[in-house]
Amino acid sequence: MHSAVPFSMAHRLGTTIVTVTDATGRPLPHTEVVVTQTRHAFGFGNIGFDFLGLANGEPDAIGTEGLAELYTDVFNTATLPFYWGRFEPERGAPDTARMQRTARWFRERGIALKGHPLVWHTVQPDWLLDLPADEIERLQRERIRRDVADFDGLIDTWDAINEVVIMPVFANGDNGITRLAHARGRIHMIRMAFEEARAVNPRARFLLNDFDLSSAYECLIEGVLEAGIQIDAIGLQTHMHQGYWGEDVMLAMVDRFARYGLPLQLTETSLVSGHLMPADIVDLNDYRIPEWPSTPEGEARQAEELERHYRSLVSHPAVESITYWGISDAGAWLGAPIGLVRADGTPKPSYHALRSLVKDEWWLKPTTVVTDEDGRIPVTGFRGDYELRAGAASVPFAIGAAELQIRIVHPAGDR
Amino acid sequence: MHSAVPFSMAHRLGTTIVTVTDATGRPLPHTEVVVTQTRHAFGFGNIGFDFLGLANGEPDAIGTEGLAELYTDVFNTATLPFYWGRFEPERGAPDTARMQRTARWFRERGIALKGHPLVWHTVQPDWLLDLPADEIERLQRERIRRDVADFDGLIDTWDAINEVVIMPVFANGDNGITRLAHARGRIHMIRMAFEEARAVNPRARFLLNDFDLSSAYECLIEGVLEAGIQIDAIGLQTHMHQGYWGEDVMLAMVDRFARYGLPLQLTETSLVSGHLMPADIVDLNDYRIPEWPSTPEGEARQAEELERHYRSLVSHPAVESITYWGISDAGAWLGAPIGLVRADGTPKPSYHALRSLVKDEWWLKPTTVVTDEDGRIPVTGFRGDYELRAGAASVPFAIGAAELQIRIVHPAGDR
Repeated sequence: MHSAVPFSMAHRLGTTIVTVTDATGRPLPHTEVVVTQTRHAFGFGNIGFDFLGLANGEPDAIGTEGLAELYTDVFNTATLPFYWGRFEPERGAPDTARMQRTARWFRERGIALKGHPLVWHTVQPDWLLDLPADEIERLQRERIRRDVADFDGLIDTWDAINEVVIMPVFANGDNGITRLAHARGRIHMIRMAFEEARAVNPRARFLLNDFDLSSAYECLIEGVLEAGIQIDAIGLQTHMHQGYWGEDVMLAMVDRFARYGLPLQLTETSLVSGHLMPADIVDLNDYRIPEWPSTPEGEARQAEELERHYRSLVSHPAVESITYWGISDAGAWLGAPIGLVRADGTPKPSYHALRSLVKDEWWLKPTTVVTDEDGRIPVTGFRGDYELRAGAASVPFAIGAAELQIRIVHPAGDR
Repeated sequence: MHSAVPFSMAHRLGTTIVTVTDATGRPLPHTEVVVTQTRHAFGFGNIGFDFLGLANGEPDAIGTEGLAELYTDVFNTATLPFYWGRFEPERGAPDTARMQRTARWFRERGIALKGHPLVWHTVQPDWLLDLPADEIERLQRERIRRDVADFDGLIDTWDAINEVVIMPVFANGDNGITRLAHARGRIHMIRMAFEEARAVNPRARFLLNDFDLSSAYECLIEGVLEAGIQIDAIGLQTHMHQGYWGEDVMLAMVDRFARYGLPLQLTETSLVSGHLMPADIVDLNDYRIPEWPSTPEGEARQAEELERHYRSLVSHPAVESITYWGISDAGAWLGAPIGLVRADGTPKPSYHALRSLVKDEWWLKPTTVVTDEDGRIPVTGFRGDYELRAGAASVPFAIGAAELQIRIVHPAGDR
C-alpha cells in the first residue's frame, strides 16, 4: 500500500568536505575517522505537554522516564502549551517558573522549543470575559510581551496567533478574544500578535497557524503579506481523526501554501490507530465518546499512513517541520488513540515506523571512513549536525544546503 | 408560511415637507395637489441580458416588447453583460456600439445600469490563453480602461472584479486570468481592477463581487481594506437553485458582511420555480439536465420565498440593492426555471408578488393631498424620486434619509 511515487529527498541532503589535518595544518591522508549524525535540521516535532511533571519533579503517571526516552530518541522539537486560560488561570499568577523548568529540561536533551499559542480564542481565562475590548487588547499585548520575554533563550519559535480565520466568528463558547477580533478585524489581531512578539524578541521566529486550509486561509495570508506584516513561516494543522488524506491531497494543499515563498510547518498532525471519527463531524471537538480504543488493525494502518505522510511531506521542499500531536494515547486530545505509544507505555508500530525513518533511513549512524590522498572526506547526508570522531576526541560539524569545506584538526595530532 | 418576524422598514422611509407657493413665494394654503412616487432609491435590479436584441432592432424571440414592459414596470436597475470572452471574442473588435445602444435603451426607460464584470476568470477570450502573464495583465488593464471609458455617462456602477476567492485556484477550465491571479495574488488583481477603473471614471461606483460567502470572503475583504483599496460596495451572490436559505441564515450572512461599514448589494439572486437542484452539487455549473420545468407547486413556492427574501433583505439597513438573476425562464442560466416570467411570456406568481411589494406596498401611488394653513404638505414614503402635480404641470422632488424642506411653485400660479 505504500505510495508508488518515488519521493525525492535530494533537496534534504547536503555535502560537507572535511579535510583532516594535524595541529600544524598539514592534511592527514589515509586516516581513519568516524562520522556520525547528531541532529536533523528538519524539524521532527511533537507536543511536550506530557513532560511538565517529569521536568518539575512531580509524580506523573503518563510522562515517565520511559516515555521520555522514546520521545527524545525520535523528536528534536517540542511544542509547549501556552493556552492562556491554563497558563494563567488566576490573573497575575502565570505558570512561568514551571514552564521554564520544562523548557530547560527539553533544551538539556537537545530539543528545540516552540510555544503555542500567544493569541487564540479558545481556552481563554475567565477573568478576561467581562472586560471591555480596549482592556482585553491591552492585557493580550502585555501577555505576549511578558511570555516571549520570559522564555527568551529557551523558546525560539512561537505560534504567534492561532486559527484567525474563524477567530471573529467563532460561536462555540463566549470569549474575550473573539469579541476583540470581531471589533478590530483579523489583520489587526495578527499585526498585534506579531508586532508585540517581535518587539520583545527579534531573534525568534513567529508563525500564523490554522486548521482552516481552504481558500480562506490563502486570502488571510495574502492580506497579511499585503499589510506588510512579517511572518516567518506558515503553520498548517492536519488533524486526521477522520482518516488520512493521502499524499495527493496533502501535497496539493502544501503546494497552494508554498506559493507564498515562506517555509511551511505542519504544526499539528494526528492519525488514529482505532476507528475513524465519522466524516459528518465538522468541529472535531464535538465528537465525544466514552472510550476510543487502539486496535491491532488500526495500529497497522496508522503505521503505514504515518510513513506515507512523512515520506511525502519531507519530500516537499517548502516543508521545514512536521509536529505530531501527541506521544502517548494517555491523555491524548479528544481521547483519540493518536499516540505513537499506547496508554500502557509500549510503542505502537507507528513509533517504530517513524523512528526507522528519522534515525535509520534518513540518518547517518557512526561510520568509519578513511581520508583520501589530500586528507579529505566528503560526507553526504541529511542536513543537520554531525560529529567527527578521531580516537577519543570529537569535533562537531554541519551539513547544510550549500557544500561546505571545513578543516578539522585531528585531536591525536600526527599519526 | 410567511415569517413571523415583523421586519421594520422604518430606515427605508423618509419625509420631505413640501411648501407650495405661488410665483411670488407666497404659501398656498388648502390647495389640492397630487403626489406620486416615480422611482425607488433602493436598487430593485435584474439582468438586462435579454434586451440587447430589442434595443438594437434585431429580431429576438425572448426579449420582446411585452417582456420589456413587465421588466420596466418593476425594476429600476439593469446589469449588463461584459463577459470578456463574449464581449470581445475577436481581439480588437469589442461589441461596444451594440452594448451602448442597449445601455441607452435602458437609460431612456429610467433604468440605471451596472456592468458585470470587468475582471473574471470565467468566459475569457481564447486569444488570451497562450499569452505570457505580463501581456495578460497589460491587456486586462487596457480592457478595463477602455470599457469603463466607453460607458462613462451610461454605466455608473461596475462589478470591478468577480469571484476573487476562487480566482487563483479555479480548476474548471484553463484561462489566462487564473494564471495571472496565481502568479500575482488576489489583492494584486483587486488593486489592478479598482485602480484602473477608478482612474478612468472617478464618479462611478465599483464593487467586489463573490459567490463564496464563507470566512474566505471576509478574510479577502479585510485584506483589501488593510491594503487601502477603496471599494464602494460589497457584492454578495445568492443563487438558490438548491433551495431558499431562509431569513435567519440570510440575515446572519448579511450581518457578517455589514460589519465592514460598506453598503451591500445582493448582486445575483435566484429562486427556482421547479424541482430543487440536489444538495450534493458543489459547483452549480456541474448540474446539467435536458429539461428543468417550472411547475405550479414550484411557482407557488418561488413566489412565497421571493416575498420573504425581499422583505427580510430590504429590512436590513446595510443592503442597498437586490438584483434578481433573470426575468424569463427562456435562456435562463443553467436552464433553471428561475425567471419571474415563464418561457411563454406570462408572468409567474413570483412576478406579481415582487411587483406588489415594489409598486404597491412600498410605493406611493398618485395621491391627492391638500396643503395646510401654511401651504405645507409632509410627504412620507420610501426613499426615492417623487413628483408633485398641480393641474397639468408637475415638479419633481426627492425623499431621502434626512428630512427635507422644499418649496415648490404651483405651476398654476395663484389659485
